[in-house]
Amino acid sequence: MLPRGRPRAMGAVVLLLLLLVVGFFLFGRDPEYGLGTTATLDEKPYGSRNRSASSSQLLLPSKCEMLHVAIVCAGYNSSREIITLMKSLLFYRKNPLHLHLITDAIARNILETLFRTWMVPAVVVSFYDAEELKPLVSWIPNKHYSGLYGLMKLVLPSILPLSLARVIVLDTDVTFSSDIVELWALFDRFSDKQVVGLVENQSDWYLGNLWKNHRPWPALGRGFNTGVILLWLDRLQQTGWEQMWKLTAKRELHTLTATSLADQDIFNAVLKEHPNLVHPLPCVWNVQLSDHTLAERCYLEAADLKVIHWNSPKKLRVKNKHAEFFRNLHLTFLGYDGKLLRRELFGCPNQFPPGAEQLQQALAQLDEEEPCFEFRQQQLTVHRVHITFLPHQPPPPRPYDVTLVAQLSMDRLQMLEALCRHWPGPMSLALYLTDAEAQQFLHFVETSPVLSARKDVAYHVVYQDGPLYPVNQLRNVALAQALTPYVFLSDIDFLPAYSLYDYLRASIEQLELGSRRKAALVVPAFETLHYRFSFPNSKAELLTLLDAGSLYTFRYHEWPQGHLSTDYSRWREAQAPYRVQWSADYEPYVVVPRDCPRYDPRFVGFGWNKVAHIIELDAQEYEFLVLPEAFSIHLPHAPSLDISRFRSSSTYRNCLQALKEEFHQDLSRRYGSAALKYLTALQQSRSRA
Amino acid sequence: MLPRGRPRAMGAVVLLLLLLVVGFFLFGRDPEYGLGTTATLDEKPYGSRNRSASSSQLLLPSKCEMLHVAIVCAGYNSSREIITLMKSLLFYRKNPLHLHLITDAIARNILETLFRTWMVPAVVVSFYDAEELKPLVSWIPNKHYSGLYGLMKLVLPSILPLSLARVIVLDTDVTFSSDIVELWALFDRFSDKQVVGLVENQSDWYLGNLWKNHRPWPALGRGFNTGVILLWLDRLQQTGWEQMWKLTAKRELHTLTATSLADQDIFNAVLKEHPNLVHPLPCVWNVQLSDHTLAERCYLEAADLKVIHWNSPKKLRVKNKHAEFFRNLHLTFLGYDGKLLRRELFGCPNQFPPGAEQLQQALAQLDEEEPCFEFRQQQLTVHRVHITFLPHQPPPPRPYDVTLVAQLSMDRLQMLEALCRHWPGPMSLALYLTDAEAQQFLHFVETSPVLSARKDVAYHVVYQDGPLYPVNQLRNVALAQALTPYVFLSDIDFLPAYSLYDYLRASIEQLELGSRRKAALVVPAFETLHYRFSFPNSKAELLTLLDAGSLYTFRYHEWPQGHLSTDYSRWREAQAPYRVQWSADYEPYVVVPRDCPRYDPRFVGFGWNKVAHIIELDAQEYEFLVLPEAFSIHLPHAPSLDISRFRSSSTYRNCLQALKEEFHQDLSRRYGSAALKYLTALQQSRSRA
Repeated sequence: MLPRGRPRAMGAVVLLLLLLVVGFFLFGRDPEYGLGTTATLDEKPYGSRNRSASSSQLLLPSKCEMLHVAIVCAGYNSSREIITLMKSLLFYRKNPLHLHLITDAIARNILETLFRTWMVPAVVVSFYDAEELKPLVSWIPNKHYSGLYGLMKLVLPSILPLSLARVIVLDTDVTFSSDIVELWALFDRFSDKQVVGLVENQSDWYLGNLWKNHRPWPALGRGFNTGVILLWLDRLQQTGWEQMWKLTAKRELHTLTATSLADQDIFNAVLKEHPNLVHPLPCVWNVQLSDHTLAERCYLEAADLKVIHWNSPKKLRVKNKHAEFFRNLHLTFLGYDGKLLRRELFGCPNQFPPGAEQLQQALAQLDEEEPCFEFRQQQLTVHRVHITFLPHQPPPPRPYDVTLVAQLSMDRLQMLEALCRHWPGPMSLALYLTDAEAQQFLHFVETSPVLSARKDVAYHVVYQDGPLYPVNQLRNVALAQALTPYVFLSDIDFLPAYSLYDYLRASIEQLELGSRRKAALVVPAFETLHYRFSFPNSKAELLTLLDAGSLYTFRYHEWPQGHLSTDYSRWREAQAPYRVQWSADYEPYVVVPRDCPRYDPRFVGFGWNKVAHIIELDAQEYEFLVLPEAFSIHLPHAPSLDISRFRSSSTYRNCLQALKEEFHQDLSRRYGSAALKYLTALQQSRSRA
Repeated sequence: MLPRGRPRAMGAVVLLLLLLVVGFFLFGRDPEYGLGTTATLDEKPYGSRNRSASSSQLLLPSKCEMLHVAIVCAGYNSSREIITLMKSLLFYRKNPLHLHLITDAIARNILETLFRTWMVPAVVVSFYDAEELKPLVSWIPNKHYSGLYGLMKLVLPSILPLSLARVIVLDTDVTFSSDIVELWALFDRFSDKQVVGLVENQSDWYLGNLWKNHRPWPALGRGFNTGVILLWLDRLQQTGWEQMWKLTAKRELHTLTATSLADQDIFNAVLKEHPNLVHPLPCVWNVQLSDHTLAERCYLEAADLKVIHWNSPKKLRVKNKHAEFFRNLHLTFLGYDGKLLRRELFGCPNQFPPGAEQLQQALAQLDEEEPCFEFRQQQLTVHRVHITFLPHQPPPPRPYDVTLVAQLSMDRLQMLEALCRHWPGPMSLALYLTDAEAQQFLHFVETSPVLSARKDVAYHVVYQDGPLYPVNQLRNVALAQALTPYVFLSDIDFLPAYSLYDYLRASIEQLELGSRRKAALVVPAFETLHYRFSFPNSKAELLTLLDAGSLYTFRYHEWPQGHLSTDYSRWREAQAPYRVQWSADYEPYVVVPRDCPRYDPRFVGFGWNKVAHIIELDAQEYEFLVLPEAFSIHLPHAPSLDISRFRSSSTYRNCLQALKEEFHQDLSRRYGSAALKYLTALQQSRSRA
């Protein structure tokens, strides 16, 4: 390769120098203005001691002009990665954005939910099905870790709308450190013939001298990196891009067998043949932290970095003497609270996503001085939701399968391993986390052999917003994502009997729940007050511990009515499931069909959140059947902040009372006189209190 | 005022228009380039639909040029506020900064510790004593909430070093949303005569028409706001600034009795007389969100906001239809992880603060593949420390007074109220929090009547960094900040007997600890496993509960050796303090003089952190005296993440073992053969294990 590559590389350098000089005369007094900083690593930047404001002399688009960005994104991990990119992009942007996301089904599912709940003003998102693109690129053998998806950037011109003249294409592993409008403005620097803007590749890969027998694809000098691309779409169409790259790729594949760097190899081979098509971009727009990076030559002199590209397979763990600096830039957005990006663009029309304006109005109408203001606000809050935050294998379809459903925050993370040991079946867990905590959670799972071995546990992150724990909103997120026909509605502090998963599936089958009965199977609840205790292996062992005073029925001292109807003394003797009747404040843990009623999201913070759900089940005529061999045990923990507030604040208790009353009003409206018994029970309990 | 003010205001508008036109011809094609955006609110910005890159045409200083910033800061709340300003400033800055902080003793104490531990490269901090400035301004009656400190901006030219030619002066309640270098560059726009750069005041305050009989100080039109000032110091000296403002102030005070807006009134009165001294800055450099703000006229049209000024006494709670937008900008930095700002400036010399380079090297030398890498890294980590995060009243000097010392993280916050009820004396608490959690903590204290009533509790925030809880580093921070002669070294999950504070002080006096004895008073530890239990009011009640099995001696089942030496059966009967001998793994809660040995910071995460400290006390020949009426009770909580990791990971246990061995080696080095007994005990316990 070398003898063939060199003269062309020299030619490219001359060409670039020429462009630079032209840029100098066209655009300003200081050559630095021409291309921001140098376009190739071998030149010394001009005027590095003095500098002008970034991108001076660029005429930026009007502040309401829409900028278009296309990204290919597939799978769970890329769907997480792209969010950090999005946060950095949105943090600095001041223009409306239209995102064109080419996704597989997994990424689409995740990102649709995320953007719908994120509600960022002045962001439009369109999805394109990556499946449809596969046949267009699957004939190209590719050794790069991005697989087929990496190659899809080649066919963007044929999938994006014809009305779209220009687009910025990004890899998911880039981080912005400046306003994308400055990058967009570089389209204006294109000559009439140029169709693609790229930054030089910041390693010697394409020079072919990295190791012995290294045979890279042909490129102009060091070639270009395709992590950040300015694509002039309509010109590409006119140039016959599709024919062009296919011809080149096919020809090179005769000798090269496969691409090593996916689309990038093909882009470079095409541009080597047609150097007039490429507009070289300043190096700061794609600072590449690959394993063999020469990026230092760019960033040590530059006044300002614009985009960081984590293009090593090691990503953030890449070795680099300035790694800490770059990591800090990235961590800034990794932990950044995404809701702060719900910022409007002053003076631009039609920027609000569906529902956002109504929501803002509803929030604005709340009275901050009203005692239950926090409750009202929390109920209205739309939380960002990131479903299946980690890789997940959906359970195979089985008619009697049960998913354990629960929710937690950071302080219950240590329950997860034990829970995994007790429940070998699928789980759907909602986690209420800050953006920073979500990263700690990721680390926690990755470093736990128990957790990382389990692919049937789906974790759904609901991002924190507001002072009260939105317990029922969390339960509904976890419930909506359960994929089996039945769900076990549990709480995170409970460990189920080791046999419970199997026993529940057998019971569902025996009781023929699927076909004829509308039932809620009750799993009796117990509690231990000891940190360490040996979990009973059977009902008999449990009863022994109960008699020895090592276990209690759940909340026996504090809140006996919560499980009164379960009738623990009958359970002791029971050999078969038995039916029980609803009574006031009943809140058992139950197994129900996945399509059961949702939890009432008005209950935020502590209190009555499960009680209301059980009332709903009863009102809809679910039978409560207690299972004779089922049990689950609550482990001790410090009282939550919400329960502490409930105990110490009469306002808090009054607000909860108000919620209960509103709930009953709604209940009467929906169930008429059938709901009378719940109201009577409520009034009786109030008169007792 | 109005008839007098108007013609001059008109004159000012004409002058500004003139400047703008001159700016147009001098600086660019587009008038917007001249002043960024308009300098007065009454003009429509030019070219608001098209825009250039921000501050185009400004020639920025070289990237290593030092910029100087002066800020007056006094008291606990301003010391918190200034940190958010600093974070926003550091986030965008790309130049070395020299901060000139004019502080009272409180702010100095807090900020010196903070900046020393923050270790931000390329930031120099100088402190100036505000006490010395008081006499220079105390003769001016002032009604503004900033008090005397507000006025100090007037005398900055006489206190800052003569070598300092130019400085940017900021109020603590501003937030940056851009690089301060662009503001600094505006000095170049000053004419030869101009000495001070200011943004127009964005309310009608100085027009005097806000309410009936409102008599503001004289000003040019709407006057100027002094939240952001460009001061050309050497020119000010030459102009005779000191004489000038004093003369003006004295004259106006004949009729106006006091300033309403502190320094700002005087600045405006001076500039009204000498309009040639002021250089009007673009409105975006001080977007004022005061109660009567007209800022909308600025920001709705501007392409870019540079500095937000929360100049309402309501601060973030100010009513404004775009309040959410501005709050989000502010919250971005309020919750921003400050350690991410430890970013070097590429290519600038001598930027590292004391110790930073050695620390970096030590960290770089660690082997990431070594099994105990996380422990090594955590031990080396320098955490940012914000002492006395909330307003605090130091206890009056009393010879036998005791401070309760403890540490906690967010998940133990709900212990604080109970602790306050049990311990009426001073406390020094270290909190291990993220920046975002520190804000939640602030909210928690503000909304708790119990906590906000207690001014003798000092909260010291140690910012989170790394995966292991740095328990002993936290204890040392809390211990170092205790201000009484004695300290009770407790843990956050313990509630002391109601009488303990009084009893300890009496015991210290009776035992004459102050003069002759080197003693550690042991407070026997118990535990309950119940969430709710009624706390014993006396030793007799405690013994009854113990006999009833409602209480246990602490960790009786799991770790009896921790409190074996305390000898609970002797304590039952004891009427007087009794001496006990050290035994292996002894870790009682003790009362010692404040100058006791520090905790060994190598113990991070779970395990052996108190044991090592008690060994240290024993090695230094402290007597252990058990107090017969003292007790404290541990409340139940879920196991911490660290203890879970200890239990589940053999690597974790091996690393702890390695730490123990290193500790013993150091012990032998320091105490020679006297330390032999500790090593023997360790070896015996290992052979038992």
